[in-house]
Amino acid sequence: MTLPGMAKAIPCLALDIGGTKAEVAMVSREGLVLRRDRLDVQRAGVHLFDEIAGLLARVRADDEVSALGVACAGPMLAGGVSVSPLNIPVWRDFALRDHLERATGLPVGIEGDVRALALAEGTFGAARGVKSYASMVVSTGVGGALVLDGRLVNGDSGNAGHLGHLNVVPDGRLCSCGSRGCLEAEASGWAIAEMTGQSPEFVDESVRRRTATLVGRAIGTLAAVLDFNHCYVAGSVALGYGDDFFAIANSSAREVATLSYVRDLVVERSGLRADGPILGAACVAWRTVS
Amino acid sequence: MTLPGMAKAIPCLALDIGGTKAEVAMVSREGLVLRRDRLDVQRAGVHLFDEIAGLLARVRADDEVSALGVACAGPMLAGGVSVSPLNIPVWRDFALRDHLERATGLPVGIEGDVRALALAEGTFGAARGVKSYASMVVSTGVGGALVLDGRLVNGDSGNAGHLGHLNVVPDGRLCSCGSRGCLEAEASGWAIAEMTGQSPEFVDESVRRRTATLVGRAIGTLAAVLDFNHCYVAGSVALGYGDDFFAIANSSAREVATLSYVRDLVVERSGLRADGPILGAACVAWRTVS
Repeated sequence: MTLPGMAKAIPCLALDIGGTKAEVAMVSREGLVLRRDRLDVQRAGVHLFDEIAGLLARVRADDEVSALGVACAGPMLAGGVSVSPLNIPVWRDFALRDHLERATGLPVGIEGDVRALALAEGTFGAARGVKSYASMVVSTGVGGALVLDGRLVNGDSGNAGHLGHLNVVPDGRLCSCGSRGCLEAEASGWAIAEMTGQSPEFVDESVRRRTATLVGRAIGTLAAVLDFNHCYVAGSVALGYGDDFFAIANSSAREVATLSYVRDLVVERSGLRADGPILGAACVAWRTVS
Repeated sequence: MTLPGMAKAIPCLALDIGGTKAEVAMVSREGLVLRRDRLDVQRAGVHLFDEIAGLLARVRADDEVSALGVACAGPMLAGGVSVSPLNIPVWRDFALRDHLERATGLPVGIEGDVRALALAEGTFGAARGVKSYASMVVSTGVGGALVLDGRLVNGDSGNAGHLGHLNVVPDGRLCSCGSRGCLEAEASGWAIAEMTGQSPEFVDESVRRRTATLVGRAIGTLAAVLDFNHCYVAGSVALGYGDDFFAIANSSAREVATLSYVRDLVVERSGLRADGPILGAACVAWRTVS
């Protein structure tokens, strides 16, 4: 029997869908991964949904679960009503939520991957107890999410937090979005590779410094406008560049965030480890039934 | 007798405090100004608070009111616990809310003037029914406020929405905040006067075009990051420059806001008229007792 409030105490199912792998886990309310399994997205091909449904059933076994939470690469329509992940060409305007609800009989919540990560940062990561913050991933692309006044900001279509498309170099390099000078066009892994012809880990000091400076500028100006003092950064480029990246990003952020209410602004590492993405999906599940 | 829910139907007291005048009004829930009066802030000098208290008592008369809402120039601490309006030197860290609660015996809500205006835009202006939007005032300075997912965003200290401090020209002109290239340092009335030695209404076409272009750039990049499609602009500079300003600001905003979810982005005139500020204060009152 399920007593009122018990739904919150029982585990959830979490599904993290990326371009290369899809992972499913049973996650306890305390953030413990109780069971997990994964599959190769590209190898599944046109059978991807059926394989995911099978994976969900196997990981769930006969256990009671409260809900299914999904973190998925974008773009998508708000709530995952339809998804079109760039790296999964077999899914275009794919009605993921309907399919999952039918396959599992569970309440299903779906979020963009970086937005789900921001929820996990607040629940299990470095942002515990912080009401307003930005989450950012600087890797091949630049993604982000904003939690303001304790809520993940959605915007008109659930796309709020695209920090990669903040303009940081007026009339700068052409971005894949069609604009010029977006942070993603100037300071992401692909931008670095395009500019230098080299993989981001092999570029010289000046490129690293420029990347961190632009990331810091974006964070600083957003902090001044949105009144937050914490930004948590993950992603292979930022983490790969290490302490220097964070020192430069902090000093660059401070140069533009000069108002009294952002004097405590800190650009810091995400507190989530390898389980971040699956914990993000779990947070989406819990939000769905809360 | 006050039945449950009746508090919402009875009028509120609204107080708008600017650098030159303070105005008090009784406002109906429908946004009708039932009675009003004002005083000269500079002439009141050190007696400002006592004169405001007297004005409140006169306008209220013996009528029942639900709450007092205040729109006040900043800076202030969240909720108006203390205010230090730049143009009112006799108030520095002045405990406005405490003083008003004691003087009136009413529930008191206090907001920054542009943030209050944003609430009025949503209730009585052009943003009725719009869940996510920006409000902006381009006059001597550049102020703003953000309503996202139906809520006025506060941030850590109630200062969210300072659109004037978005960086639009990296390493640009020095701003009063200490940073460089803020929108306020490049496209406000005082910036125009500093750059040209002329009052904003007398400057030539190229300065007007540059002002509108930078305002549009700021709105476009924020729309891409925050996922909103409406920005309402008021203020003597923007409104004074007329249709040309809005045409240029729209095309400049579109250049940076190219993602699919902001394809309906429109920069338009505020729908509030001269009563906007006092209606803003009234919205703060209603929010306080809702």
